Amino acid sequence: MRIAVLGGDGYCGWPTALYLSSRGHEVTIVDNFSRRLWDYELGAQTLTPIRPLPDRLRAWRKAGGRVISSFIGDITDYEFVGSMVREFEPEAIVHFAEQRSAPYSMIDRRHANFTQVNNVVGTLNVLFAIKEFQPDCHLVKLGTMGEYGTPNIDIEEGYIRIQHNGREDVLPFPKQPGSFYHLSKVHDTHNIHFCCKIWGLRATDLNQGVVYGTVTPETAHDETLVNRFDYDDVFGTALNRFCVQAALEHPITVYGKGGQTRGFLDIRDTVRCIELACLNPAARGEFRVFNQFTEQFSILQLARMVQTAAKRFGLHVTIDHIPDPRVEAEEHYYNAKTRNWSTWDCNRTCSQNRWSILW
Amino acid sequence: MRIAVLGGDGYCGWPTALYLSSRGHEVTIVDNFSRRLWDYELGAQTLTPIRPLPDRLRAWRKAGGRVISSFIGDITDYEFVGSMVREFEPEAIVHFAEQRSAPYSMIDRRHANFTQVNNVVGTLNVLFAIKEFQPDCHLVKLGTMGEYGTPNIDIEEGYIRIQHNGREDVLPFPKQPGSFYHLSKVHDTHNIHFCCKIWGLRATDLNQGVVYGTVTPETAHDETLVNRFDYDDVFGTALNRFCVQAALEHPITVYGKGGQTRGFLDIRDTVRCIELACLNPAARGEFRVFNQFTEQFSILQLARMVQTAAKRFGLHVTIDHIPDPRVEAEEHYYNAKTRNWSTWDCNRTCSQNRWSILW
Repeated sequence: MRIAVLGGDGYCGWPTALYLSSRGHEVTIVDNFSRRLWDYELGAQTLTPIRPLPDRLRAWRKAGGRVISSFIGDITDYEFVGSMVREFEPEAIVHFAEQRSAPYSMIDRRHANFTQVNNVVGTLNVLFAIKEFQPDCHLVKLGTMGEYGTPNIDIEEGYIRIQHNGREDVLPFPKQPGSFYHLSKVHDTHNIHFCCKIWGLRATDLNQGVVYGTVTPETAHDETLVNRFDYDDVFGTALNRFCVQAALEHPITVYGKGGQTRGFLDIRDTVRCIELACLNPAARGEFRVFNQFTEQFSILQLARMVQTAAKRFGLHVTIDHIPDPRVEAEEHYYNAKTRNWSTWDCNRTCSQNRWSILW
Repeated sequence: MRIAVLGGDGYCGWPTALYLSSRGHEVTIVDNFSRRLWDYELGAQTLTPIRPLPDRLRAWRKAGGRVISSFIGDITDYEFVGSMVREFEPEAIVHFAEQRSAPYSMIDRRHANFTQVNNVVGTLNVLFAIKEFQPDCHLVKLGTMGEYGTPNIDIEEGYIRIQHNGREDVLPFPKQPGSFYHLSKVHDTHNIHFCCKIWGLRATDLNQGVVYGTVTPETAHDETLVNRFDYDDVFGTALNRFCVQAALEHPITVYGKGGQTRGFLDIRDTVRCIELACLNPAARGEFRVFNQFTEQFSILQLARMVQTAAKRFGLHVTIDHIPDPRVEAEEHYYNAKTRNWSTWDCNRTCSQNRWSILW
């Protein structure tokens, strides 16, 4: 298939592009390098040095991979997105090209507004470009499990059947996002759903849990192909920070009680899920939603697993509970469903990868 | 009270500002005249000629009203909103300052993006300005009944108690907005809800039905105070268009079968509701939602009522069913609740105004 990976220079996009390429698809990477820019803004860096995209793409060819082309530009610029779609004629667009850090979106008003405008306008442009130039193209949009928040009922996949006053309907699952970033994803979800309905577009929303891991078989071919490992307080996930703290024998810093529970999945499952979605497109007019994660853990469970793993390396690490800087429930019910996704028979491969980062 | 009316030069904002002023409140109007600009863009005009704001404000004083001040600027400019809030120190901000036409938002990509960015950024700026300069200020935000779409269950006020797999929670009512404009309102709703939660702001979301009527006791004082009456296909409501068609003995043009049902309320009830909301502020941290309308009608019912009313003036009008240019259910269940609002004892005044525009 011809697949455009928007945000293909980033943490999830890069290994996805390589995996899809290794599977024989014709891949193009669309990126404006904003993720690299934010490193400069924040004075932070990935632990694994990331080479310029042309070097990465050359290394991929040298390692025997197919040619991956690239379109460098900003998807909030419609001329750019439109010309990319006209020229490349993608059968699927995998859309990672968003500002994806909740803490970044919460820095101040400027960052909040930037995140919402950037993500919403970028996605609207992609939708309009598909409608205008490639109406049969399947949009595979990365959502996040964080859109749901932590309701006191089971989290279904995108929709819920509600019985109320003797009537019933299947409606979008109510969302309670917990940051301006997560809000931007909910805005996207509503916009995409609407465009599928009125224009007959095909879209799959993949609400992935927190993605962990750095290495995939494809990025392991050559050092130049290495993926990001962010551990700063803005783009680093809790797990990545815990791992780095443990390696330094610094106490692991858990926000509050640590009962905050989320779904998690390995980056190698992320890339497989993306291909599965591409190979099984939504129908015209369908807005399909999948929740994707392999396990659910609380922050405290994560901290304890990292502590245990560190012990095997002879590292003695304590766990500190520091005041939670976020307004969130530190203890809550959490049971998210991922039924639809498992019917794609992805379970077998997923289970092999569980917690491979730690062992 | 000191009340800032954002969008106070527009169709709902202007009579609200006058009504609040007549009730003894200290009112300021905040507007960038974008509504007037869109008339030029569309080559359309209100049937009632609207005078420049300074003329309107002078006429209001001359008619014996209190001084209404004004801040002219764009709320997507944070410097402007912030300085307004610092200077005026509002106890309540009534926020009408959005692009409010569904058809306008659906013209093309540029209008869709403009509507969403304009409305979302404007509202985010208002939220940040309240947080930064006037954290006790009560935001009275105009939502719309159109946020809900037409679910097959009763529409509750903002929230719904959901029982699911043996557990239950009260969650935001699932939204199915039907245009890029309505989507922008849903985005706003999520953003405001979040800011109330994390910053302890007070907000009331008034999901008003379709507002009709032109004259209020305040605008009737002087011709210079007259309110807008839009009847074009972008900013005119179906009812306004039907009235003008009837006056011309032009067939009334119903989209499709005409079973599309919505809530309606008189502009005189709108302004009363706003004052009630201001006088009864939400608690700190509370995001309160009210549905506001006095009656529900289908488009075909509206057309028939206009036909009947026209007959009394000796006008013979037919009803045409033209293909529906919108993707929407032409027949559907519709039963929206407005319980909370009625407990404010606004019912008595509302019922006096029913369909006064027609008789």
